[in-house]
Amino acid sequence: MSFEQFSIIESTLREGEQFSTATFTTAQKVEIAGLLDQFGVEMIEMTSPSASPQSEEDIRVIAREGLKARLLTHIRCHKEDAQRALDTGVHGLDIVIGTSPQLMQHSHGKSIRQIIDLAAEVMGYIREQKPDIILRFSTEDTFRSREADLLRVYLAVADLGMVNRLGVADTVGVATPTLVYEIVQQFVRLKRLDIEFHGHNDSGCAIANATAALEAGATHIDTTVLGIGERNGITPLGGLVARLYTLKREYVRKYTLTLLQQIDRLIADICDLDIPFNNYITGASAFIHKAGIHAKAVLADPSTYEILKPEDFGLSREIAIGHRLTGWNAIRDRARALGLTLSDDTVRDVTHTIKRQADSKPLTLAEIDALLMDAAGRELVSAVEAGK
Amino acid sequence: MSFEQFSIIESTLREGEQFSTATFTTAQKVEIAGLLDQFGVEMIEMTSPSASPQSEEDIRVIAREGLKARLLTHIRCHKEDAQRALDTGVHGLDIVIGTSPQLMQHSHGKSIRQIIDLAAEVMGYIREQKPDIILRFSTEDTFRSREADLLRVYLAVADLGMVNRLGVADTVGVATPTLVYEIVQQFVRLKRLDIEFHGHNDSGCAIANATAALEAGATHIDTTVLGIGERNGITPLGGLVARLYTLKREYVRKYTLTLLQQIDRLIADICDLDIPFNNYITGASAFIHKAGIHAKAVLADPSTYEILKPEDFGLSREIAIGHRLTGWNAIRDRARALGLTLSDDTVRDVTHTIKRQADSKPLTLAEIDALLMDAAGRELVSAVEAGK
Repeated sequence: MSFEQFSIIESTLREGEQFSTATFTTAQKVEIAGLLDQFGVEMIEMTSPSASPQSEEDIRVIAREGLKARLLTHIRCHKEDAQRALDTGVHGLDIVIGTSPQLMQHSHGKSIRQIIDLAAEVMGYIREQKPDIILRFSTEDTFRSREADLLRVYLAVADLGMVNRLGVADTVGVATPTLVYEIVQQFVRLKRLDIEFHGHNDSGCAIANATAALEAGATHIDTTVLGIGERNGITPLGGLVARLYTLKREYVRKYTLTLLQQIDRLIADICDLDIPFNNYITGASAFIHKAGIHAKAVLADPSTYEILKPEDFGLSREIAIGHRLTGWNAIRDRARALGLTLSDDTVRDVTHTIKRQADSKPLTLAEIDALLMDAAGRELVSAVEAGK
Repeated sequence: MSFEQFSIIESTLREGEQFSTATFTTAQKVEIAGLLDQFGVEMIEMTSPSASPQSEEDIRVIAREGLKARLLTHIRCHKEDAQRALDTGVHGLDIVIGTSPQLMQHSHGKSIRQIIDLAAEVMGYIREQKPDIILRFSTEDTFRSREADLLRVYLAVADLGMVNRLGVADTVGVATPTLVYEIVQQFVRLKRLDIEFHGHNDSGCAIANATAALEAGATHIDTTVLGIGERNGITPLGGLVARLYTLKREYVRKYTLTLLQQIDRLIADICDLDIPFNNYITGASAFIHKAGIHAKAVLADPSTYEILKPEDFGLSREIAIGHRLTGWNAIRDRARALGLTLSDDTVRDVTHTIKRQADSKPLTLAEIDALLMDAAGRELVSAVEAGK
């Protein structure tokens, strides 16, 4: 388990750029990297300098920003790509090459033997020039690769003694937590190297898979803001934080959690996206309690139905009370907030009225307040008439 | 493993109603239930008749629709709630009561002994009147309950011989796949009863947890359309389908997958939501390929970077080519689609031009086409001038 000491490789400026609507200007990259650095991510990964002239220039710009985060770029297993990347001044290179039968056939056409030779050649070339650069080697589409092929490649690469970190990548979003655990755990057992996990979310397991990787001893997890990336993206930064926080709040204490809202909103704005209604932590509904039994218990103690504390993220909860599922405890609480002390019978009557009316259309808070004020007025009149 | 024979309990009309913006009219409930029935969900769960007068009436309306799906309603462990539910004509009752220390204190205030006695009383009362009704008993907040308490309650309830199905519920979204597997597997081993899993998504594991439950032998999974429910919701119908499809397409062959788009859109419209950009299968970006190496391989064989076939869901893929991450294979493919046969050098030149221009602003397809037509014109002129 490496929950206590793991690093986030924030890849919004690489994998995130592969999202359909993402095209970051230099100024936007500076703003994004700066905010992620303030949040406390340990590493920031940028698009390969071979992608385009501006991609190359932007790495140099970010490298000059003097961030606390280490700066990485993600390159194919090519000498020319490596040379360009070395020239930008990054702290680390993330090398990737496909090993699944699908990618060996249609991406690069190389055999496992050729992949190993190429990796040795490219990494040797890099190490000659920069003995201290952080060097990662990853297979692509790891979880559809033959296990024997993976072992051959990783063991050969590890034995070269040139790599700091091995990466495993669920490129098509097919892995299960069990499979991720087994593969990562095997590499941790065989070689004392850092392990990075990168996982797509096509089948909804990117967060669970990243967590399984950490359980098995992985040291680095790739994230992007809102999870943006190829297709429907990868492990989202906020989602990983939510998961680790719920396991043990201390695991994410090192990050400035109150910046998460601003980070999610920045990327949503730049990419012209709505933050999904169901987004982790920062989605509009994340801290809304609605059903009567939920509202009642949350009013007594938020931990009854909240595993994340909104205040730790600079957010607040909302208890929705003007609908047909409402309960009398929530209505009583609202009466108290208005300074009204109504009898239990009156609160129950008002609750029934709200439920009946809400069957046609939910009530606004003002409408509920009006019902409560009316009821309080009637209680007062009755009390006066009774000569109290 | 019960992947081969599991049932979906579709709870959009119960858990889904607990989502902040969800208030379904009778007509909308009829439409939603009808579409889910066409899709092929095995069971449909509706809000308790005790919630409001309309909630009660709507169950009767859906019960008269004569759907193939079994109709359930979800009630507290109360005799009065049970009586009302029995009177509506549903096929099954889903009884729930909290067993975590948090809920025992703040929801109902009962001890484990009292919970067991109450369950026996309520279920006995139900069985007396309807010996054949489908009866489920579930704890609430199962994964924060003491394991010893869970075992006492479930074993006592199972021994009454009155229940068809036991439910486990991750009410606050804190469970991990490993924990779900262990708890479900234990119950499967101890008692030959159907097991239902209900999981919230606060920490992003609702799909992985549902899958772990099936791996462990659970027979029923709760879903809602788009995952709507309390806070950020539960296991989404489309997400569960995506996960099971990627494990083995046959697992979801029994459902009419092409209806998923229409189902997701219907709920988004009714609840005034945008379908999240990253939604499983039906999100805007689910089948968009962008980076050059992805586009190249997908053009050769979609399975290189696609684990879900869009055509199985009545959808199609898109290869984005007008951006700085584009590659020459995708540009060549576009030229061919236009009926142009350009030399490789020309295609590479056009690709460089696109990358450079896209560094400022992504190009539209029309702009790319214009560049390709221009290049074709220049090639033709050169050929003529060369006297060919």
